[in-house]
Amino acid sequence: MPQLRIALAQVNSCVGDLEGNAGAVVDWTRKAVQQGAHVVVFPEMHLTGYPVEDLALRESFARASQQALESLAVRLADAGCGDIAAFVGYLDRDSMGPRDSAAVLHQGAVVARQHKHHLPNYGVFDERRYFIAGQSLDVVRVHGLEVGMVICEDIWQAGGPVAALGQAGVDLIVAPNASPYERKKDDQRLPLVARRAQEGGAPLVYVNMVGAQDDLVFDGDSMVVAADGTLLARAPQFVEHLMLIDLDLPGGAARADGEVDGFAVRRVVLSDEPVPAFEPEHSPGVVEPLPDEAEVWSALVTGLRDYVHKNGFSSVVLGLSGGIDSAVTAALAVDALGPDAVYGVSLPSSYSSEHSKSDAAELAERTGCHYEVQPIAGMVDAFVNQLGLTGLAEENVQARCRGVTLMGLSNQFGHLVLATGNKTELAVGYSTIYGDAVGGFAPIKDVPKTLVWNLARWRNAEAEKLGETPPIPEASITKPPSAELRPGQLDTDSLPDYELLDRVLDDYVEGDRGYDDLVRAGFEPELIDKVLRMVDRAEYKRRQYPPGTKISFKAFGRDRRLPITNAWREGKQ
Amino acid sequence: MPQLRIALAQVNSCVGDLEGNAGAVVDWTRKAVQQGAHVVVFPEMHLTGYPVEDLALRESFARASQQALESLAVRLADAGCGDIAAFVGYLDRDSMGPRDSAAVLHQGAVVARQHKHHLPNYGVFDERRYFIAGQSLDVVRVHGLEVGMVICEDIWQAGGPVAALGQAGVDLIVAPNASPYERKKDDQRLPLVARRAQEGGAPLVYVNMVGAQDDLVFDGDSMVVAADGTLLARAPQFVEHLMLIDLDLPGGAARADGEVDGFAVRRVVLSDEPVPAFEPEHSPGVVEPLPDEAEVWSALVTGLRDYVHKNGFSSVVLGLSGGIDSAVTAALAVDALGPDAVYGVSLPSSYSSEHSKSDAAELAERTGCHYEVQPIAGMVDAFVNQLGLTGLAEENVQARCRGVTLMGLSNQFGHLVLATGNKTELAVGYSTIYGDAVGGFAPIKDVPKTLVWNLARWRNAEAEKLGETPPIPEASITKPPSAELRPGQLDTDSLPDYELLDRVLDDYVEGDRGYDDLVRAGFEPELIDKVLRMVDRAEYKRRQYPPGTKISFKAFGRDRRLPITNAWREGKQ
Repeated sequence: MPQLRIALAQVNSCVGDLEGNAGAVVDWTRKAVQQGAHVVVFPEMHLTGYPVEDLALRESFARASQQALESLAVRLADAGCGDIAAFVGYLDRDSMGPRDSAAVLHQGAVVARQHKHHLPNYGVFDERRYFIAGQSLDVVRVHGLEVGMVICEDIWQAGGPVAALGQAGVDLIVAPNASPYERKKDDQRLPLVARRAQEGGAPLVYVNMVGAQDDLVFDGDSMVVAADGTLLARAPQFVEHLMLIDLDLPGGAARADGEVDGFAVRRVVLSDEPVPAFEPEHSPGVVEPLPDEAEVWSALVTGLRDYVHKNGFSSVVLGLSGGIDSAVTAALAVDALGPDAVYGVSLPSSYSSEHSKSDAAELAERTGCHYEVQPIAGMVDAFVNQLGLTGLAEENVQARCRGVTLMGLSNQFGHLVLATGNKTELAVGYSTIYGDAVGGFAPIKDVPKTLVWNLARWRNAEAEKLGETPPIPEASITKPPSAELRPGQLDTDSLPDYELLDRVLDDYVEGDRGYDDLVRAGFEPELIDKVLRMVDRAEYKRRQYPPGTKISFKAFGRDRRLPITNAWREGKQ
Repeated sequence: MPQLRIALAQVNSCVGDLEGNAGAVVDWTRKAVQQGAHVVVFPEMHLTGYPVEDLALRESFARASQQALESLAVRLADAGCGDIAAFVGYLDRDSMGPRDSAAVLHQGAVVARQHKHHLPNYGVFDERRYFIAGQSLDVVRVHGLEVGMVICEDIWQAGGPVAALGQAGVDLIVAPNASPYERKKDDQRLPLVARRAQEGGAPLVYVNMVGAQDDLVFDGDSMVVAADGTLLARAPQFVEHLMLIDLDLPGGAARADGEVDGFAVRRVVLSDEPVPAFEPEHSPGVVEPLPDEAEVWSALVTGLRDYVHKNGFSSVVLGLSGGIDSAVTAALAVDALGPDAVYGVSLPSSYSSEHSKSDAAELAERTGCHYEVQPIAGMVDAFVNQLGLTGLAEENVQARCRGVTLMGLSNQFGHLVLATGNKTELAVGYSTIYGDAVGGFAPIKDVPKTLVWNLARWRNAEAEKLGETPPIPEASITKPPSAELRPGQLDTDSLPDYELLDRVLDDYVEGDRGYDDLVRAGFEPELIDKVLRMVDRAEYKRRQYPPGTKISFKAFGRDRRLPITNAWREGKQ
């Protein structure tokens, strides 16, 4: 039976870094060639990074991408990688407009190219704004085997290009992806990939990007599925990885071209000669997806690390309040960047409790991050006394003096400021604009409060298992949460119990359920009314919040995914 | 010849205020009926307001819109307005999804409804994200005359629904719009409307929204164009206005229905009986669009007024530096809200010049706004001394202490903070995040620096003409701009001359021209390289800036219209 050795290059990229991304193609292709691969597949738009957003509309950027692709083909051949068929995602542009495309590079030339057909325009995607959909399918013959390609969303739609490839006849389908992580996404991906392999009548090689770009994180989870839908191999999540697999392919697919099922199918012959029979060496096995908390933790660490590094920073500074949010944020930062790149600052006011100071110090000691104390009483007094501020205005000045202090340290020493707010707070607007919302990145912005606690417990337990010091002080996990902006203040003075609140928010925000639905689901009408009003009114605050890694599909990872309301409120009008 | 009296209701609405928007329909329809109108036309999505953005995706909101529409029909009949055919834009939803729709209300019922066909998905529009396109055309017979309707973007496209209406046969076309203002837009609108009237073979009644919603402002500019493309009437810009016009319509249009040109045409008979012949009374004439500066000034005043009021504020506070930006912002606020609703605060630091303090005081005196002085030296010292800040970190602390002060006054007294940055500063990142970027609204965010000066001169000259006190101190217009964050600092220390800078920015941002293009256009390569790098690197700062009224189509009115770049830079890589 004809054979091929396929390399799945599950790698990271950086939006706009054409030079660096092209370099990665050369490096990983060289490794694939050294191990005897005949085909190597990179993720969607690897050459430009993903998502390029409005950059897609700049002609000069599309031209730069096209030129980088041509140069890359030559560079690969020069590096002794001309024989392999390299599938590389890039930004194309023709007379119709910009295209989300993949090309095949071979013997120093771009020998085939194809545009994405299905352009997602929901959730985090706006691809109809940026791209023109493709109408054609380039199928390349590699060692006598017919290899078709489709891009990301193309496999999330029944029928369409995969079905057309099935009709036209292919021996193998490769699919470059930039499919953002969300919790337990493999539960959706695997059945989809399996269905498409069956629809296309050929094994499907699914290669996903890994790493983070802005608020999106990509988990990899690359896989190979047989024509009957059986999972043959799956790569580990959240790490760059070259997965090699030796496939026996029946071959003998029909070779229709021209118009098939509404698509213009074009056949390109790279090589007719079958690979001489070889002993299979690569059968990488199936790596199981991480358990929930480990998966989320890895996503957050990856999101934080890549945001910091891709934006040219090497260290971060954050306020340590002794509470659970700043403790988890600091632990994530230490896992992402190492303790020496993390600067914790305790910023006590006259209302700060003794335990908030000692818990902050203990966190620093446990994680090994830098630590200093900057009391804010003098700064706060300067504002409060001169302006005669009282009540909420006085509370907010404390948060803002902390923000100005952290930004001052950032400007002086070049650290990126991390905001420590969680999704629950942001949802209901329990934060101070220009205060605790200050920062370049908000690592737990999309993590509900109850999950923050779960992650803390999970991370400590993992450390125990490994015989390491649990990073998070027990007191930070167990004490009742408080903003400590006035004497004896507790979160529960203003907010419902977090368990209940998170359930309502999940239904309202992620589930898009309305007031009537929630009443029917058994929540107290008064509670729903209160929570929904808080969420609707907090929109402006959320818009001003720094970006943060998304772990769920909907709000509040990206600002414009909010339920924008203005005058209209759910519940009693 | 058959006659009709048409009322164009060029009115304001508020996103989400179903109750208030429905009330406006009743009020304006009553006025139209009192003046004998047979047809009244409201703007696109008037009932929900425009743009509803992600609210479109909430089923509960779509249901509320549908219910409000049904109630409105009954309410109109109860108010004695059952005979008139009222065209009202609203949000519909069916099994396919949300629709941008217009309905005809008559005798207490919704008698016809139609969905927008062309969904714009560029610039400020994301309608393919929110709406499903229509496939049908409802034509209503009013007093024996056939009246078709199309919605906004439908008239920006050749062919399509207007051409289909022409083929099917109509005596009149009405077009509800929510077409955002941009400079000199009537120069584009009028020829378009004229072409569509010719294409449809019938007079076209173009009704546009007036007022502002978030960063969009709508100028009205409603008009009626004859079947031969002649402009018959045009309404004034930026004011609510009921324009009545008596039209002689030839009648006798073909009355095809069923499938026409790919559209399902449905005929609905409201009344067969022609209107008894009447003496034309309403020939409203053609109001010329405002001259450029007056048009921009009106747009900015409207944008500011509606943002403040629609968000539930009644007063604003802003820092007065003595410079041109804060002076123009204050003058706009006084024109929008009256002097008693505007609180100016001089916030001198130890680097502030004498003239900056006296120019600020003079501005307050000239405009009659409230005025106080809050020196920031004590606050700045508290940070600088404790944290040991120097250089840029020290400069930024000054801007941030001003921000904290303004927010403190906002929280204490309930004013909305206005940010005073202009488009040129924002483009190149010449601002302090959490400093001068603090605020709920940024009135001149989309106004280039050179236009800020022109507007100041124009506004003062207008005052002179009317024998009023020119609001802006002459010295604020003529002195060289400075941030005054260190001794002797001038904007020109960091930035090119503003005339030159604005030309480069216009080409790069509005014109989407790249580095090579700009070199060919004759700019100095070094200058372009410097400016483009500044623009690309300032992206994060711009994202954190408050919203502001858009007067141009592209960046930087809305955050996601930026050229998002990350690692890639125009010019030398």
